[in-house]
Amino acid sequence: MKVVITGGCGFIGQRLAQRLLEKGSLVGPSGRQEEIDKLTLFDTVAPPDKLPKDPRAELVTGDIANWPLFESLIDRDDISVFHLASVVSGGGEKDFDAAMRINLNGGLNVFQGLRQRESVPRLVFASSIAVFGGAAMPETVGDLAKQTPQTTYGMTKAVCELMINDYSRKGFFDGRSARLPTVVIRPGKPNAAASSFASGVFREPLNGEPCVLPVETSQVMPLLGYRSVVEGFIRLHEVEAEALGDDRAVSLPSLVVDVAEMIAALRRVAGERPLGEITVAPDPFIQAICATWPRDSREERADALGLPKEGSVDEIVEAYIEDYL
Amino acid sequence: MKVVITGGCGFIGQRLAQRLLEKGSLVGPSGRQEEIDKLTLFDTVAPPDKLPKDPRAELVTGDIANWPLFESLIDRDDISVFHLASVVSGGGEKDFDAAMRINLNGGLNVFQGLRQRESVPRLVFASSIAVFGGAAMPETVGDLAKQTPQTTYGMTKAVCELMINDYSRKGFFDGRSARLPTVVIRPGKPNAAASSFASGVFREPLNGEPCVLPVETSQVMPLLGYRSVVEGFIRLHEVEAEALGDDRAVSLPSLVVDVAEMIAALRRVAGERPLGEITVAPDPFIQAICATWPRDSREERADALGLPKEGSVDEIVEAYIEDYL
Repeated sequence: MKVVITGGCGFIGQRLAQRLLEKGSLVGPSGRQEEIDKLTLFDTVAPPDKLPKDPRAELVTGDIANWPLFESLIDRDDISVFHLASVVSGGGEKDFDAAMRINLNGGLNVFQGLRQRESVPRLVFASSIAVFGGAAMPETVGDLAKQTPQTTYGMTKAVCELMINDYSRKGFFDGRSARLPTVVIRPGKPNAAASSFASGVFREPLNGEPCVLPVETSQVMPLLGYRSVVEGFIRLHEVEAEALGDDRAVSLPSLVVDVAEMIAALRRVAGERPLGEITVAPDPFIQAICATWPRDSREERADALGLPKEGSVDEIVEAYIEDYL
Repeated sequence: MKVVITGGCGFIGQRLAQRLLEKGSLVGPSGRQEEIDKLTLFDTVAPPDKLPKDPRAELVTGDIANWPLFESLIDRDDISVFHLASVVSGGGEKDFDAAMRINLNGGLNVFQGLRQRESVPRLVFASSIAVFGGAAMPETVGDLAKQTPQTTYGMTKAVCELMINDYSRKGFFDGRSARLPTVVIRPGKPNAAASSFASGVFREPLNGEPCVLPVETSQVMPLLGYRSVVEGFIRLHEVEAEALGDDRAVSLPSLVVDVAEMIAALRRVAGERPLGEITVAPDPFIQAICATWPRDSREERADALGLPKEGSVDEIVEAYIEDYL
């Protein structure tokens, strides 16, 4: 079978690609494990070094809102898509039209592309806990919380969840949405996500560089390590549709911690390793977005489906050191 | 100011037009009452007899998904839109693509048209309690219930609610969504809405004609009379944005009754008037849609805003006899 990862050159896209190539098979539209003979990483920018060294892998550069191009990727009935391509939260607040084009029109291209096949392909969509927010948001956010997002990013994610439920109900494809909490620790450079500091507060000090926090250390956020995110995407792809029922969206498990606890875990795991200095310099733009995030989270559906999470923030820091330092 | 009613030749559109012409003014983008000098009824089919006999009124025929045409209607800064145009529930189940084109692309045309103005116009959108449904739906549906619609119609309404919240948050326009329960008693012919029988069960017998019910008399549904719907739309248009907060969608008040109670009210009000016979012949297609509807409803936000409802089903039947017989 063929697997397409949109946003395949991003951090999670790359790790997911590696993991799928190792694993070698997925449940195909046939309902049986099928060997992956082609893995397409689709992204707006796809430098050659993002191509996994594997004959099954290919890179395709393009705009997900370009229908003829995207349609040409969904060229087989034995196919699955992991739809990760997205404008991020801070980016969407600064450019509403880009968020609508990439997240909404891009999403519709994915949905229509899969719908055109003779088979009922599986789709895993990277949604976000940014679908929650506002005055209606309960103290503890669970899978039954009403979705009243307070960012354009969160709105487009909620809209795609609704569409995936309906396309799946109609039998056009077999979709599953995974709501991501903040994913840590992203290597490399900060990005335009409002939550970028949640990786930076670990990454920069571990690199011996200073970290300027745009929020107070009392800021609470639900976190998940990238290893669990990738494993969660794959397990959600593999579960039987019956286990999901008529709501195909599941919040991935999370660790709910404040920034002070994140820093404490960093210091514990780092031990004698010299760390760059962390200073606090609140940024009103970032703080305003963070203020809309859930302060507590329960993930009963993910727990029932056996989706994984790390045992502690320390474990997330240890994995990052092992993988990247 | 100018007022545009999409779906303006429909039953509610026509009654709303009449009411606005009588009223003569609305709160404009200025925040003050402004005189209505033009009322445009926009619809796919607009027979000349749908034009109110009033020099302020005009009919425009067209497809709401046609952007240049729709844009040309939003040609003033002192404007308000009542967006009622929609593919209905049964129609949307039979033609998914029509529901997406009219309800989603049509909605986006309304939103983008208003966004282009220099002012912040008000928008009232006819949403539906069909946004609720499925396994996640609580026994009693309130304004905080999660939206897991089980029809394409309901999905597109939920998506438009989310978009209206976000466009309003961004200050692109000042939107308000009114979730309609089943509106009764519609005069004329049955339509493609799954709830069409809820009017037919009153209308056909009162016309001396037989009524064949596609559901059991134990079928429960939240109802609202058309007079309250029209009044609710206007009051929702007039409230201060601050009263709505960050969630611009409000379930209109309703009377939750079963079909047996509807028939009992009909017989009470009809008195000596001869009635056509009512027979039950369940239709699996209609029953399957009805089975997804809420069986109880609370409308705390509408109550707090003072949106009206009839005191009883009897009152709804009396109004219909007064208006149409």
